[in-house]
Amino acid sequence: MAVASTVPEAIARFLDEPTPRDWLDEACTRLPEMLNDHANCELKAASTALGFLYRYPERTALAQRMSKLAREELRHFEQVRSIMDEMAIPFQRTSASRYAGRLRDATRPMEPNRLLDMLLVGALIEARSCERFAVLAPRLPETLGKFYGGLLASEARHFEHYIAFARSECGIGDAKLNERLAELKDIEATLISEADPDFRFHSGPPLQLSKLSP
Amino acid sequence: MAVASTVPEAIARFLDEPTPRDWLDEACTRLPEMLNDHANCELKAASTALGFLYRYPERTALAQRMSKLAREELRHFEQVRSIMDEMAIPFQRTSASRYAGRLRDATRPMEPNRLLDMLLVGALIEARSCERFAVLAPRLPETLGKFYGGLLASEARHFEHYIAFARSECGIGDAKLNERLAELKDIEATLISEADPDFRFHSGPPLQLSKLSP
Repeated sequence: MAVASTVPEAIARFLDEPTPRDWLDEACTRLPEMLNDHANCELKAASTALGFLYRYPERTALAQRMSKLAREELRHFEQVRSIMDEMAIPFQRTSASRYAGRLRDATRPMEPNRLLDMLLVGALIEARSCERFAVLAPRLPETLGKFYGGLLASEARHFEHYIAFARSECGIGDAKLNERLAELKDIEATLISEADPDFRFHSGPPLQLSKLSP
Repeated sequence: MAVASTVPEAIARFLDEPTPRDWLDEACTRLPEMLNDHANCELKAASTALGFLYRYPERTALAQRMSKLAREELRHFEQVRSIMDEMAIPFQRTSASRYAGRLRDATRPMEPNRLLDMLLVGALIEARSCERFAVLAPRLPETLGKFYGGLLASEARHFEHYIAFARSECGIGDAKLNERLAELKDIEATLISEADPDFRFHSGPPLQLSKLSP
């Protein structure tokens, strides 16, 4: 069952599937792990943005935007770390999630497909993150809920920046771009909908071991 | 011959050797290359700062400071890129310089020596960068000179942050820390003083081919 929320309309329209209620229920009982993985995600998002600068150094507009995005993700990383510190939650590195790993596996290796796919995957991850901020915010303790509301406001446009660069940087028409985007959206929606053995910020609903029994 | 300048006293005292006048003269005739390498250095400094977050995730104070430093270096990267864009200078990636490569080679691989050396090398690179901002500023076209003066003000304390973490994070007494710092300062001063086949933001004086002739 989908979650009633205040997800911005552009984001709700962009994603094929809303976050399942089972994930949200699970997240509310596992706040320390959720915050830890969220801090990791902000750090990884910054590294991913910087990866564009290293891989496509000659593209000035892309480099400037990705550098700004990286700075914003790092500021959010610091904020989540501060909250974790106040709550006496130790920070630990998390390995790549099923979500990020499968989306990365879906990117094609040859240019210009590689840049296109990385930008579209970037858009999907940013949109999903914001959707999760929106559905989490009303369910969290007040201070934390306000913080997630602020993150949503701050990051709500990120996915559009990624899409804009996919249009401007890859020399591909709208029809082909939308076709590839639809394929990646499908993979993303499946990852969010199918039972996931690990709980993460971007995981699917928890695997119910009882449901596996005969 | 050393350069008369407005290098902050703490930085002048920290470094064993001032920038040679021959490097400064060369830099003033090679501004596009200097700016390009400087932009690369800001990006590499951000990546180096983030490396501490990945390698020592559990050290909260270090992570928070390095994340802030990375944000500041990225903002400066964007500013240098903007100036290059206005001057129609294309940005290109530069490989590791002799300076950064030799200092990295001098770091010891085993902990806690590795963290100590990386922090001390970080302090030296930050201090040298600021010293170069200071000696360059009065010699550059006005707008660029003002920009370098601003960078100097903004980054002048970075080397002290690195030294403070070397003291607080490595479980080593002042005597041993200063002994190791003296060894690394010696390497750094040699790299800045000895003729360098490549011109870089952190290179030594240019190799005078005529001096090699009999």
